[in-house]
Amino acid sequence: MSADQVKIDRVFHALGDATRRTILEKLSQGPISVSRLAEPFDLTLAAVVQHLQVLEDSGLVETEKIGRVRTCRIEPKGLSVAEQWIRDRRTIWERRLDRLGDLLAEEDER
Amino acid sequence: MSADQVKIDRVFHALGDATRRTILEKLSQGPISVSRLAEPFDLTLAAVVQHLQVLEDSGLVETEKIGRVRTCRIEPKGLSVAEQWIRDRRTIWERRLDRLGDLLAEEDER
Repeated sequence: MSADQVKIDRVFHALGDATRRTILEKLSQGPISVSRLAEPFDLTLAAVVQHLQVLEDSGLVETEKIGRVRTCRIEPKGLSVAEQWIRDRRTIWERRLDRLGDLLAEEDER
Repeated sequence: MSADQVKIDRVFHALGDATRRTILEKLSQGPISVSRLAEPFDLTLAAVVQHLQVLEDSGLVETEKIGRVRTCRIEPKGLSVAEQWIRDRRTIWERRLDRLGDLLAEEDER
């Protein structure tokens, strides 16, 4: 598997979980410490940290430890790999549908 | 979890696997029978069928059995739920960055 494929795998895997998407929504409001991020979740801190690890590995989130506090923030660039993949597919699929339309129109003309 | 959330979970989960993404690329070229689709893969037919099931559950692929042959084809609409989710997030994140830019500019003026 190419490095790009591994990257895409990780992003889609990270996004395929409702708790991780909720974490991303929260981080949309600005950087926050891990412990404050974890507060509203009905999860152990360890579980939240594990979700954050998946998000960090996928490039969607960055964390930084200053003193004793680990702060996390969104990394908007992380989404672009997934966005690009979807956009490319859609272009290919739509082109195919257009071609199909052309063929049917040609059929009609005959 | 809302019905939409379940849908998004399924689409991202389906996309988070390189073999399933390769199946989608193949189906981009047009509808094909399950057995012909499976040929180039170094997988058992059962494994390919399992991947197809995940893709079908996510709404990205449709299959239809005519006589003894099951044919599968891409369902472009299936991508739109993932596309919409990503687009919404990007809009929110960019708006936040813009606001941050405005704040910094105001700081500079003072």
